[in-house]
Amino acid sequence: MASIKDVARLAGVSVATVSRAIAIPEKVSEKTLKKVNDAVALSGYRPNLLARNFRSSRSFCIVVMVPDITNPFFSQVIKAIEDRAQQRGYAVLLGDTRDQNSREQEYVHRVETRLADGLIQLRPNEIHVDGDPLPIVYACGCENVPNCSVTIDNTLAAKKVVDYLVSLGHTRIGCLTGLRENPHSMERLAGYRQALEAAGLEYSEQYVSEGDFTLGSGQDAAKKIMCQAKPPTALFCMSDQMAMGAIQALQAQGVQIPQQVSIVGFDNIAYAEFWHPTITTVSQPAEEMGKRAVDMLVSIIEGKEFTHESKILPTQLIVRDSSGAAPKDPA
Amino acid sequence: MASIKDVARLAGVSVATVSRAIAIPEKVSEKTLKKVNDAVALSGYRPNLLARNFRSSRSFCIVVMVPDITNPFFSQVIKAIEDRAQQRGYAVLLGDTRDQNSREQEYVHRVETRLADGLIQLRPNEIHVDGDPLPIVYACGCENVPNCSVTIDNTLAAKKVVDYLVSLGHTRIGCLTGLRENPHSMERLAGYRQALEAAGLEYSEQYVSEGDFTLGSGQDAAKKIMCQAKPPTALFCMSDQMAMGAIQALQAQGVQIPQQVSIVGFDNIAYAEFWHPTITTVSQPAEEMGKRAVDMLVSIIEGKEFTHESKILPTQLIVRDSSGAAPKDPA
Repeated sequence: MASIKDVARLAGVSVATVSRAIAIPEKVSEKTLKKVNDAVALSGYRPNLLARNFRSSRSFCIVVMVPDITNPFFSQVIKAIEDRAQQRGYAVLLGDTRDQNSREQEYVHRVETRLADGLIQLRPNEIHVDGDPLPIVYACGCENVPNCSVTIDNTLAAKKVVDYLVSLGHTRIGCLTGLRENPHSMERLAGYRQALEAAGLEYSEQYVSEGDFTLGSGQDAAKKIMCQAKPPTALFCMSDQMAMGAIQALQAQGVQIPQQVSIVGFDNIAYAEFWHPTITTVSQPAEEMGKRAVDMLVSIIEGKEFTHESKILPTQLIVRDSSGAAPKDPA
Repeated sequence: MASIKDVARLAGVSVATVSRAIAIPEKVSEKTLKKVNDAVALSGYRPNLLARNFRSSRSFCIVVMVPDITNPFFSQVIKAIEDRAQQRGYAVLLGDTRDQNSREQEYVHRVETRLADGLIQLRPNEIHVDGDPLPIVYACGCENVPNCSVTIDNTLAAKKVVDYLVSLGHTRIGCLTGLRENPHSMERLAGYRQALEAAGLEYSEQYVSEGDFTLGSGQDAAKKIMCQAKPPTALFCMSDQMAMGAIQALQAQGVQIPQQVSIVGFDNIAYAEFWHPTITTVSQPAEEMGKRAVDMLVSIIEGKEFTHESKILPTQLIVRDSSGAAPKDPA
């Protein structure tokens, strides 16, 4: 087994330099770092990095907290985070919180006890920390959080969807929300209301049905909202998964989409363009979000500076086959 | 800020016991561990766990290597792994290898350098380790790996699918595979061939089309296989995602499913029962697989014993609307 001395000899530097390059890579020049890394690879040296972590008080890990990893939108963001973190020398600890605060606290605790250097929050919830502030970046999160964040303008994105449905002649536009207290739901509902108001259409609670962003909840919410005397001719769904559930439920009742009812989703997950019909949706920049969140977090961790940077990324309405002109004689 | 002495006083034990309970929890009684944990929570004590990790030569992390986290089958397995690992006191490091050996080696390196205590391999590839053996469990992996594994019988599962299609009267049964060199593909293709042979049907390379388990590859493979003089009347697809791509491609050509062509998938991801039509598929026990893999790995890590246990979990054919009787006058 090669030793640190072998690495130093191969790299042509001192043992202390090898030690520093392993413990605090950003404190040595790129040239030296490369020499040391090449020598480590060549010699087969396997440093005990727990010793490095202990001495440098760093774990080179970041936590990503996600409400539900099986939601394809989040898995896209996580893929980008893992990729970027790997490039920056950090591993990603996965915190699937199942939307529970107690599980979230366990992961925050990992940062407090130095098992992770910082965290990226994908839940749209503010994290409460008792002691010193921790390196935290909010991504896909709510606006107005007191830390760094990478978000989209949910209100504006929702308004654009409803403006589009209005332009197709729809006047009875329903909304399938996520959980009503979820900040994403609240912001998107605000955009829905703004668009109705701008079009001179009245807001009615009868046209709003609550789900929780999942397939099954879209099915249930659609069934509920459609069984009234004058059902909507268009549904704005707050996730593609809910849109898929809604389409399934309506098709099972023999409803033609988009001839009788138009459906619009949110997120642009991979399945949206394979669905039958293909789904009109709002594309969120999942990859860019993940990448930027890592860069922000690493600069806080390494610079030890807590800035309050907030970056809002653009969204795009993608029109596909699930939406069309309002029916002339709606049911 | 509370100190370790405060914790000891609150728990009514010695400082050494608190230290041991934090560093090597499995070495103290459950009763003592609970007393210490309660006292830690009550006092707000935040131990530097990097020191614990250094002293115990343990990181309390496990790596999960996955070929593609955006595949919903893997995200289901990972969800179960994260949940179980959390219960057992371990965090999960996510290794999205994008099916590249170089990325895989970086994660293996984390275990070699003690940044993780062991790893769960979700790619069906054997991991090559130069030095001492490492705690590794293969899940959803290939058979015949020299370590612990939790798998399904891929050959048998595929054979059951094709037996079922034969029982519906199909004699021209196509197969959309993952990458041909992928062990899952090879095993499932073997099952496909066994079933054809048992039914007295000839195997033809013209009825086999290669993809890579993704939606887009299912679309392409289906288009390719269907444009021949006597196209198949049934397609066995090696993933639900490929089945979805195939259904989309055929429906776009006006093909009725299942009246003209039956489609069967593999995995039973959540979308399968929401698709139009709902997809007949093989259900893999994702949750049970993830849970067992963690239990096996933790027992290797904590017992330091390398057993060669191999657990094969059962699968189930779930019949839905995408498959039916063979057409009387096929195209």
